[in-house]
Formats: sequence, structure tokens, C-alpha cells
Amino acid sequence: MTTPAVVADTTDAQLEEIISAAAMAAPLLAIRTPAEIAEWLDAAADALDAEVDALLPLAHEETHLPARPRLAGELLRTTFQLRLFGNLLREGAHLGATIDHADADWPMGPRPDIRRHHVPFGPVLVFAASNFPFAFSVAGGDTASALAAGCPVILKAHPGHPRLSDLTGKIVADALAKAGAPYGTFAVIHGVEVGVAALRDPRIAAASFTGSVPGGRALFDIANSRPTPIPFYGELGSVNPVVVTPGAVRERGADVVKSYVGSFTLGAGQFCTKPGLLFLPEGHGLTDVLAEAVGATKPQPLLNEHIANGFAARLSTLESEPGVEVLVGDDTNDRFVPHPTLVTVSGKDFAANIEALREECFGPSSLVITYADLGELLDLLAGLEPSLTATIQGQEDEEDLVNVLLPILGRLAGRILFNDWPTGVTVSWAQQHGGPYPATTAPGTTSVGAAAITRFLRPVAWQGFPNSFLPPALRDDNPWKVPQRVDGQLRLS
Amino acid sequence: MTTPAVVADTTDAQLEEIISAAAMAAPLLAIRTPAEIAEWLDAAADALDAEVDALLPLAHEETHLPARPRLAGELLRTTFQLRLFGNLLREGAHLGATIDHADADWPMGPRPDIRRHHVPFGPVLVFAASNFPFAFSVAGGDTASALAAGCPVILKAHPGHPRLSDLTGKIVADALAKAGAPYGTFAVIHGVEVGVAALRDPRIAAASFTGSVPGGRALFDIANSRPTPIPFYGELGSVNPVVVTPGAVRERGADVVKSYVGSFTLGAGQFCTKPGLLFLPEGHGLTDVLAEAVGATKPQPLLNEHIANGFAARLSTLESEPGVEVLVGDDTNDRFVPHPTLVTVSGKDFAANIEALREECFGPSSLVITYADLGELLDLLAGLEPSLTATIQGQEDEEDLVNVLLPILGRLAGRILFNDWPTGVTVSWAQQHGGPYPATTAPGTTSVGAAAITRFLRPVAWQGFPNSFLPPALRDDNPWKVPQRVDGQLRLS
Repeated sequence: MTTPAVVADTTDAQLEEIISAAAMAAPLLAIRTPAEIAEWLDAAADALDAEVDALLPLAHEETHLPARPRLAGELLRTTFQLRLFGNLLREGAHLGATIDHADADWPMGPRPDIRRHHVPFGPVLVFAASNFPFAFSVAGGDTASALAAGCPVILKAHPGHPRLSDLTGKIVADALAKAGAPYGTFAVIHGVEVGVAALRDPRIAAASFTGSVPGGRALFDIANSRPTPIPFYGELGSVNPVVVTPGAVRERGADVVKSYVGSFTLGAGQFCTKPGLLFLPEGHGLTDVLAEAVGATKPQPLLNEHIANGFAARLSTLESEPGVEVLVGDDTNDRFVPHPTLVTVSGKDFAANIEALREECFGPSSLVITYADLGELLDLLAGLEPSLTATIQGQEDEEDLVNVLLPILGRLAGRILFNDWPTGVTVSWAQQHGGPYPATTAPGTTSVGAAAITRFLRPVAWQGFPNSFLPPALRDDNPWKVPQRVDGQLRLS
Repeated sequence: MTTPAVVADTTDAQLEEIISAAAMAAPLLAIRTPAEIAEWLDAAADALDAEVDALLPLAHEETHLPARPRLAGELLRTTFQLRLFGNLLREGAHLGATIDHADADWPMGPRPDIRRHHVPFGPVLVFAASNFPFAFSVAGGDTASALAAGCPVILKAHPGHPRLSDLTGKIVADALAKAGAPYGTFAVIHGVEVGVAALRDPRIAAASFTGSVPGGRALFDIANSRPTPIPFYGELGSVNPVVVTPGAVRERGADVVKSYVGSFTLGAGQFCTKPGLLFLPEGHGLTDVLAEAVGATKPQPLLNEHIANGFAARLSTLESEPGVEVLVGDDTNDRFVPHPTLVTVSGKDFAANIEALREECFGPSSLVITYADLGELLDLLAGLEPSLTATIQGQEDEEDLVNVLLPILGRLAGRILFNDWPTGVTVSWAQQHGGPYPATTAPGTTSVGAAAITRFLRPVAWQGFPNSFLPPALRDDNPWKVPQRVDGQLRLS
């Protein structure tokens, strides 16, 4: 497949055609079996794998990320994710099949036969992210989970990698079509205004987004102010605090801060899970190790001009805040390939200026905050906004300390970590990539992992129907062998 | 217990005290076990049962609903609902416990040990409804499901039954406290502006509402325009279309329309599940039976002046629309105890004026629409807005017709019924009381049934923690014996 040198914005007429096709496809997808949709997802994964030699160079050209191992690993993650949702569909727990037989003796009064399962929302609009050109873009987690739910997907491409988006979109759409998906199941659109127009279209039933707080909030507001509001799943900003305990400093302080530097500089710090705040006890004695580790880290190119300008501006503001000291700065004079920066501030100065200092700085920098004692640490954590993740680097024998920190970190984040780093988000059944606002606009949901599919499903109850009219998952003979809850009892088929 | 003759609005100082106490209670509730919370719910149910002689007369006085069987049945439903959530907590599936052990061979790259469960949102603000003074009010489904989730509840009382709300609130708060719930777990507030102020408070983590479209939309907009938006679960309006097939008319037409009249006049039509639109085939020959059944129905008092005025105004507008004929009108000259009204219109006139005619008319009236053929019926259904329910009255041998109608009705509603009536919403595992906007503001959720608890839970993942730090539901030895998904496999403890 080939891709044009420049990708034009989608025209009004093209957008109308795409939305109309998605709306036509929605009821057709809704009657396909999960096993059929699983085959489509496998076909899309296979097609992407087959085009790795075309995809990686183009992704590198547009994002400056290294083709290997980074982009190859991300593509592997992307195709794995499509296949994982396929496996989930074949099991069928996502259908939430629940059967309550008629019960004349039901304590609140006679109960009719009532059965419940989950159906797709309808056409979903996905806004792609810039920083993961595969895994959070055209064929990423939102697309995979929405398609798995049985929803047609209209993917608003990120302007940071338009040609890759175009090519990925063609590969996926072609593979889906060949595998039997109806016309209108998947399409890619380009253009900021085009995305907003699509979000306002009454035929769109839900939307998802990965990106900045201002961008995500603006789209969230549009989604909610429609005459018919729709669910908007935005994954926005995150500072991902890390607390290092006195025990961890004492036992393995140098290792902890070295791996911290590795985590916050990974991918030039352009991850929503970058550890942006590190809380170290006063007198930690690790300044030299930190400075050396950051100093030894090679500069990496940033994704694009927008990111580079935003990073420079935010970092410049941060460095000028009272009490903030630059431990290792950027002496490259290259805004697009900056050296990682580490800044530090005392707990007292952080507390005095917390609203300015707790904000995300997207790119290769992090802020070390020194805390005087546990009381100050708890006060500082209480002043943070929610994040995607929160981490403890501590010792197993610091039980009391860890148990005091856990409730606070659990309120602050969707994922809490112990002696690990938040970058590197595995795709699995238990993954949770979300959190209270401003981490996301939908704190009950995740955008990574098996549970991401639930964002695009809604329940429907069937009351009084003979088995012959019921969907297979709700029949007494359970032909698809899906997990069912029958008269209150869970059954694994 | 006693209740004052007049209930004053909550003062600013009282509201601050209540919200502050709820915020203090939230982390305490979050570390209680589901079994403990189940005991609190049982205690609340027992206390309400014990006060039936005080509650029923007061409810009757304020709502004019008959004490028996209606209000007694509703109280039974309410206490049953509290206990059902207790049983759900003791099983533990609501925790969504998921364990992925570390896996060096995970196909996308080595997987850390990661585990996921659900935790309470924090303080929940519940706006009570007018039409179910027990089941959708102070101790109703929203309160029961939010408390079950482990969230403190602040209940904004409906002004239609303030003294009952006050008394119910005291009974519940007292029972919870005696059972060991922390101070701040439950409180009732009064006043429109007070409710809005609470909704804007940053300590409130989620809100729910049952009522009208304009009222619910206004609160939804406030919840979403906060600096920190919160989930808002609004159950708004619903017309609940019913399609009667030619076969059903032929085989049992008189029975169908008699039971329809029973359903739309039940509780003076003041149910969100009232069948507001009945689609009958042209030439149905049931006009006399309909007129006789409606004519024989006794007038019942409406809930309050607000409802009575709204009903009179909406009905007057409806009756003046082109082509609308009054089959049975209200000749009582009593706005508060009106006789049920049945109006009728042809499919052609309905289609020509669909935006005016498809709107809900809350109270004892319904609209019969005659359809010429299947094509016209499908067009009419396609023009409706989503509802809580949609019903088919048909014959089992009309397979093709039912199968054509099902996908359309499934898109229109959260619950579809066959040869049953939508009023009388059972509380069970499979119940779904929700639907796309304007039926609700959160189409992926339900406000009745076991799944209602999920509205107030958010997932948290634990990565890399030794078992000793993990919550019981996520430990390998599963001390609470909750259902777990382990390395992708569901296990029933």
C-alpha cells in the first residue's frame, strides 16, 4: 500500500459519507456474533504485522521515535491488543449475560422472567494521541475495544503522524472488509474542525480521547453540551507521583533513583505515565547519583513542534518558580532534541506554590521534592490532583508507613505501584489506565486492558420473551457457552 | 420518632457540616468490609420495617397515594432492595477482583504482577424523586446502591414529601449509626438552592437524579461544568412505546387494551415506565373496549400541585395538536383528581407532528396511534426518542414481525418487553432501568437492580505489591472467597 506525501483534511462531503456509512453499519454489527468480530480483529492484527516494513519507517519519519525497539515493540503491543480483545469476545463474559427466571415467590412480589445482556452503543468517534503512533492511535486500544464491543469506529487522526494514520487506516479498513465486516465499520478522518463536526453529529453515540487536559476538556464540554449528550471517555493529564521511603533510600537509594531517571527519560518523557514528581526524604544524599544519571542520558528528539514548544514553555515557567533549582539542565540549545532536565524543590516551597508546581510538564523533565517528615509528606500528597498512577518505592518491612500511604495514593490514582515504575503499561485483564479527573473524564473506566470494552457497551433487559426470540447469550441452553448469572448464581457455562 | 410540621431548608452552615462529615467518612467507609456494610443495609431495612406505622400515614398524607397496597408495597420493595444489595456484597462479584500474575512470557513483553478491584467513589449526592416516596427517595435504589458501594450519601429530599423524607432520613441515619457506620455516612438535605450548592461542592464525587428532563438536564450541565466534573446519573423522561401486532389484536385484542388501560392509569399514570404511546393497527375495532375501560377507571389524586399543573398544561397542548382526538376526556373539573384521558391520532398525523406528539405527558393519559402497515410503523418508531422501555404485544407465531421489530426497539430502550407491561419494575439481578438519552444521562448504567452499584465504583490496579499489602479480595488465598479472574480465567472462589 502507498500513502500520499500530504494528507488533506477530510471534506464535509467525505465526513457525511463516513458518518452515514457508520450509522448504517451499526445495526449490522450489532447482530454479528462475538466470534465473528474476533476474526475481524485477528485479521486486522495479521494485516498490520504483514506491513511492518512499511509502517515502521513511516512512523519513525513522522514521530522521530526509534524504529527499534520502540516502534516495533509498540506495534507488537498493538496487534497483541487486537488479539486479546478477540480472545475476550470468544469467552463472552463482556456480554454480562444475566437470567432471572420468573419467580412467583420473589420477596418483593412476583418476578417476571427478565434477562439482561450488553449491546454496542453505536458509532464511536476516537481521537488519536500523538505520543503512541500505534498503540493509542489508529489501531490502538480505543479502536480495538470499540470494535470489539461491536461499534463502528471513526478515527480522528492525530496531526502529528497523518501519513502513518492514513496508511494504518487503509490496512485496517481493508483487512476488516476482507474479513467480512460491513462497509462503514472503520474509517479515518483528518482535521481539527472535522473532528469537532463529527463530535457534534447526532449519529455519533460515544467518543474517546487521549491527550492534553485543555484539549480533552474542550471536547468533553462539546460532547456534554450536545442536544443529546454522549459519553466522552477522555484520558487527559497525569503527573504520576512517586514516594521514596527512608527505608528504600537507605537500602537501595542509588538503584531507585537510577531507575527513576530511566523511567522519566524513557521515550523523551513523552508518556502519560511518566513519573513527574519524586518525593525523597530530606538528607537523602542521592543528589550526585541523580545528577550523574540524568547527565549520562542521551537527548532524544521530541515528537513534533507543538510538543517541543509546549515543553520549553512549561519547563521555563517551572524553573522560574520560587525555590525551584535546576539540578541538571538542558545545554543543547536544541529545542527539538533537548537534554533531560531535573529540577528540585523543598517540600516547604512546593507546598507554598502547589498549584503551579503540581501541573504536568510533558517531555523529558521531572521534579524532585524533598519532604521533612511523614506529616509534611502526607500534606503534600493531599494537595495533588488525581493521576493515572501513584508509586511507592519502599521496603516490605516498612509496613506501617506503606499502610498509611496506600489509602492516600489509592484516592489519587487508578493504578498504584510498589517498587516498580509507571511507564510501560501492560495490556492484560487486570490493567487499569484511568483515574479521577483530571487523569480522565470518566473515573469508572479504563482505556487499556480488557475492561476497556465496557465503555462502549450498554445493558438491555428482555422481559417476558420466549427463548426463541432471545439473543443466544440469554437462552437457557446457552449455545455460545458464555458465563451467565442465573437466578443470582454465577455459572461458568 | 417524630417529625416537624414544616421542614426548613438546610442552612449553609448545616450543609457545610454535612458535606464535611461525608468527606471525613469516605475513607473510613472505603476500608470497611462488604460484609460489614451489608449489616448496615440490613439494619436500615429492619428499622424501616419497624416504623411502618409511622411511615405509611405520613407518606399518604404528603403524596395522596393509597397506604395499601401501594405505599406498603413500595416500602416492601425498598427494604427488599436494601437487603438484596447486602446479599450482593456478601458474594463480592461487585469488587471485580482480577489477578494477573507476573508472566515473563506474556506475548507483548514481560508482564508485572498486576491486580485490579473496585473501590468507592466517595461522597455521593442523590436527588430524590417525587413519585416513589420510598423506592426512589430517601432510602431508595440510589441510596442503597451508593451505600453498598461504600460511598457516604447526601440525599437531597424531594419537596413533594419533605416530612416523610425527614422521618425516613432519621430512621436510616439512626440505624446506620447504631450498626456501626461512621458519622457522616448518611444525611438528608432540603432546598433547591441547597441541592445545587452541594452539587457544586468539590468534595462530592458523583451524583444521581430521578425526575424530569429539564430538571435533570440542568443538574447534569452543572455537574459537567464544574472545574472537576463528576459522573451524573440522571434518569429523566420516558414515553415507553407499546406496539400491538395484528395477531395480538386478532387473538386477544380486548384483553390487551384492557391491561394497557390498567398499566397507564396505575398510580394515576405517575410512573416513568407508564406506557405513553400505544401503536395499534388501523381498523383494530377496539375503540369501544378502550373507551369503556378508561371510562370505568376511577380518578386518583395526583402527587402535588406541581405535577397537577404540569399534567394539565401538557395534556391541553396535546389535545390541541392537529389530528388528535379525545377518546375519553376528563370531566371532573378537578385538576388534582382528574379522570384518566385517552387520546388518539392517526399514524399520518403523528408523523407530521412527531416532535410535539412524542413528548412525555406525566400523569393519567396515554396516546393511541394507528398504523396503516408495517412500513409506516417502522417509520414512526424510528422517529421516537429513546425510552426506559419498549414493548411488543404480539403472538409467538408472528416470528418475522417480532424479529423485525426487536432491533428497532432494542435501540430505543433499556428494557424490552414481550406480552407484559412496563409498569412494575422488579428489583433483581437482571433488571435494567435506563436507556440512551433522554431516558438517562448515562446509557451504560441502570438505576434499579444489582448492577446499579457499578455506578459508584471505580477500578484501581495494584502493581508489584506483596500479598501482605494487598486488599483481601486481591490476595492469592482469597480470604473473602470472592469471584476472581486469575490469569484470564474466571473462578467462583
